[in-house]
Amino acid sequence: MKIRIIITGGTFDKIYDEIHGSLTFKDTHLPEILKFVRCTVPLELELNQLIDSLDMQTANRLQVLESCRRALEDRIVITHGTDTMIETAAVLGEAALPKTVVMTGAMVPYIFNNSDAVFNLGCAMTAVQLLPAGVWVTMNGRVFPWNSVRKNRELGVFEATAGT
Amino acid sequence: MKIRIIITGGTFDKIYDEIHGSLTFKDTHLPEILKFVRCTVPLELELNQLIDSLDMQTANRLQVLESCRRALEDRIVITHGTDTMIETAAVLGEAALPKTVVMTGAMVPYIFNNSDAVFNLGCAMTAVQLLPAGVWVTMNGRVFPWNSVRKNRELGVFEATAGT
Amino acid sequence: MKIRIIITGGTFDKIYDEIHGSLTFKDTHLPEILKFVRCTVPLELELNQLIDSLDMQTANRLQVLESCRRALEDRIVITHGTDTMIETAAVLGEAALPKTVVMTGAMVPYIFNNSDAVFNLGCAMTAVQLLPAGVWVTMNGRVFPWNSVRKNRELGVFEATAGT
Amino acid sequence: MKIRIIITGGTFDKIYDEIHGSLTFKDTHLPEILKFVRCTVPLELELNQLIDSLDMQTANRLQVLESCRRALEDRIVITHGTDTMIETAAVLGEAALPKTVVMTGAMVPYIFNNSDAVFNLGCAMTAVQLLPAGVWVTMNGRVFPWNSVRKNRELGVFEATAGT
Repeated sequence: MKIRIIITGGTFDKIYDEIHGSLTFKDTHLPEILKFVRCTVPLELELNQLIDSLDMQTANRLQVLESCRRALEDRIVITHGTDTMIETAAVLGEAALPKTVVMTGAMVPYIFNNSDAVFNLGCAMTAVQLLPAGVWVTMNGRVFPWNSVRKNRELGVFEATAGT
Repeated sequence: MKIRIIITGGTFDKIYDEIHGSLTFKDTHLPEILKFVRCTVPLELELNQLIDSLDMQTANRLQVLESCRRALEDRIVITHGTDTMIETAAVLGEAALPKTVVMTGAMVPYIFNNSDAVFNLGCAMTAVQLLPAGVWVTMNGRVFPWNSVRKNRELGVFEATAGT
Repeated sequence: MKIRIIITGGTFDKIYDEIHGSLTFKDTHLPEILKFVRCTVPLELELNQLIDSLDMQTANRLQVLESCRRALEDRIVITHGTDTMIETAAVLGEAALPKTVVMTGAMVPYIFNNSDAVFNLGCAMTAVQLLPAGVWVTMNGRVFPWNSVRKNRELGVFEATAGT
Repeated sequence: MKIRIIITGGTFDKIYDEIHGSLTFKDTHLPEILKFVRCTVPLELELNQLIDSLDMQTANRLQVLESCRRALEDRIVITHGTDTMIETAAVLGEAALPKTVVMTGAMVPYIFNNSDAVFNLGCAMTAVQLLPAGVWVTMNGRVFPWNSVRKNRELGVFEATAGT
């Protein structure tokens, strides 16, 4: 069972630009992470885009959908910024592809020593192997269907919209 | 759905003793990890023992089994040394408790900056929420039933014994 | 020989605000760092201010000068943002206090796993014990007198203004 | 002013062997460290040996002395295991080379996230630029002449033997 990881950027992959003192993108950290966590699951990595999810337009989300559609794999993990992860999940969910798609991201960039990125990736990698077809979001150690989750921006956590 | 985490030590929780220049135990890192990964799943942590799994005797494994049996929760994660994880899994598996038990550990101690501990914990936390009753092992991003997995000591990875 | 460390903030002490996705201040990391590096030099820590050095006004620099003047110690390390470190160094240098003052900072915040903060602190702690009275800047492993150093903003390094 | 760094191993450069669950050597981390701390001092790195200082014999110490003697640079930093750093310092000190030699090491390996290695390297790099000819030891943020320092094995710190 091969899994495709579609990378879109988000806080997960942000780095620190020491010349400008700001957070930006340069490349993805996924290959490095997957190596040191000793992941032996067959994987196909796809650098779809490197973007802050607040900057995502409809075209960006359709680009993710198109990658899911074209993928030879029917199990897909997507790393994505948390701010509009739910919006992209909705685009994917409404397409109703016969694939298991699990979205995740990070509240704190991977390069910080207290980041949630590696934990979240473990959650997503496992969820994608165990869940049926559909679009799912995994954050904070929990798994949510795409249409019953929201980001609580005050607390900085994802929570169920219904009484899950 | 509350999850119990039973901590037994293993490489996962080893620290460096700078006086003797060796690896040893002092306390568990689980509370610290669960905090920075922003896990919001209701949890009960149990410090069962802090031991190198090569030093585990039958009594140690029965102590883990007894904790699983007594637990009010029916979803349990166990952190365990990798060297005899399979042996303890067999003790738990043969007891056939009506609970979902997921074992994990680490090849590199959490305190190293290239540790697999946090990733593996994410895998286990997710697996325990999605899998049916039974005893499971999650390492290297994969999920194995307790009776069809072995540790390949030459490669330092867990692999299926059958043609999974 | 007791050393005073005057903390003013800067990139050194920036943290990541995961609610707003930006870099900000909350507290200083100096006590934590000095503990794990096992520093046994008698120290007095003073939290003077926590500010981005681009936001520093004359009053902020005079507040640092006043702390240096009032200090019982005659050896002082100052952590400071790199962008206007030279300006504050000039205010201190022109005051010509009979004390050894060593300024340092970081190009990458301490909480990033590839930060220069801890190295720079080691440089400053050593320089302050070995140098005569005067105001000095230590960055990039080098030691500069306050009046012959500049920050090269394109390269992100400190360099001598004269032919050192 | 070019500085030679002579690498001999010690706790500083130990790594974790996940197959055997023990600490060992593979390569030095010095090039990696010097890059991310953005050190701009001209350097010459020499991998003299990679050894636990408890295993050092007279021949090993003479190999370090010979490197110091042969070096074109007259400012030398040596990374060394802490257990017999003083013994090697004595061999170097008695040779009375007309060079500034600063020895340092680490109580906790660099690869641990709470290591003192990077701080100590900052101290040594600065000390070697500021001190006169002689052999010096820098640990715990302090600088000691080679013949008035000992390692307190109970506390795991270096301290002056005389009333410094």
